[in-house]
Amino acid sequence: MTPTSEILTAERILEATEEVLRRHGPAKATVVDVARALGVSHGSVYRHFRTKAALREAVTKRWLDRTSEALSGIAAEGRDPEARLRGWLAALFEAKRRKAGDDPELFATYTVLTGENGTAVGEHLADLTAQLTRIIRSGVDTGVFTADDPEATARAVFQATGRFHDPGYAREWGLPGVEEEFAAVVELLVRGLRA
Amino acid sequence: MTPTSEILTAERILEATEEVLRRHGPAKATVVDVARALGVSHGSVYRHFRTKAALREAVTKRWLDRTSEALSGIAAEGRDPEARLRGWLAALFEAKRRKAGDDPELFATYTVLTGENGTAVGEHLADLTAQLTRIIRSGVDTGVFTADDPEATARAVFQATGRFHDPGYAREWGLPGVEEEFAAVVELLVRGLRA
Repeated sequence: MTPTSEILTAERILEATEEVLRRHGPAKATVVDVARALGVSHGSVYRHFRTKAALREAVTKRWLDRTSEALSGIAAEGRDPEARLRGWLAALFEAKRRKAGDDPELFATYTVLTGENGTAVGEHLADLTAQLTRIIRSGVDTGVFTADDPEATARAVFQATGRFHDPGYAREWGLPGVEEEFAAVVELLVRGLRA
Repeated sequence: MTPTSEILTAERILEATEEVLRRHGPAKATVVDVARALGVSHGSVYRHFRTKAALREAVTKRWLDRTSEALSGIAAEGRDPEARLRGWLAALFEAKRRKAGDDPELFATYTVLTGENGTAVGEHLADLTAQLTRIIRSGVDTGVFTADDPEATARAVFQATGRFHDPGYAREWGLPGVEEEFAAVVELLVRGLRA
């Protein structure tokens, strides 16, 4: 069985799309390139994604979901809320840093794509804030955190740590001292949350 | 006495430079335009600023200094450190928001210029962090704040509030709810600082 005779799933198309984006960059990548990489007609691709824009949005969502899925386990864990909060923020910083550092070209490509796909980004941010709300709420429930409005507080924690996950700051993530800066911000926020 | 017969000071040149930048944008503004606006030769401008780059750096510094000078009074005041910290952060947000909102074209121009003038920006950030350190240190001295390293803590407070002063977020400053978001971040940080 050759690869082209495998069932053409949305996931296979998205994998190929990422590969094409990596090779050609966001400006030049076309649906025809994706179809060619898969050895199928572009009509077959369009049966899964009705437009080029829909394909680009789906591949962006997949890229963003990789981060939120990795973090959701930490948000759901049973250990104490402060340790979960620290672990979650550290994992978010680490995931973003790895994405930016391991494959800077693909990261730049996705920075262009996230700029185009506000809905996917909005959902991603809502997803991450919901995970953070869950941690803070469990801290309030067990009496270790104080927060009148856990959702608003979660948003505040997310925004206050923006320097360590917002792609606009990616260039700062490799600078000396960034670990200490991250630790100082987290410390201040955790102290502010404590009951 | 006509304006051109006034003494040609660095400040007059910088005022004219800002006006020329506002009119022509950062890409097209030249030293000849500045000289023409002042009714002097471009040689007279070069006697104050040896290169076009030096002139651009000086006008950028002047723009940034306008914010830090407005804030330095709050940092130096005698009232209680928590009120000063809240007042200082609110004044910083307000000053940046006014700059971005009142004259968006000039703000965009200076965003280009700050991108070119890393040294002026670095000095500006160091200046603001020093003001914040002063407030936090006086809180530690009077026993209302806890901070092992007031300078590192000041940097953490500055970075944690970046969303409300970093020009990269200027588009968010007019959105509904931004005041509440700012208040939530400040509240968390103040709580984290309290002894």
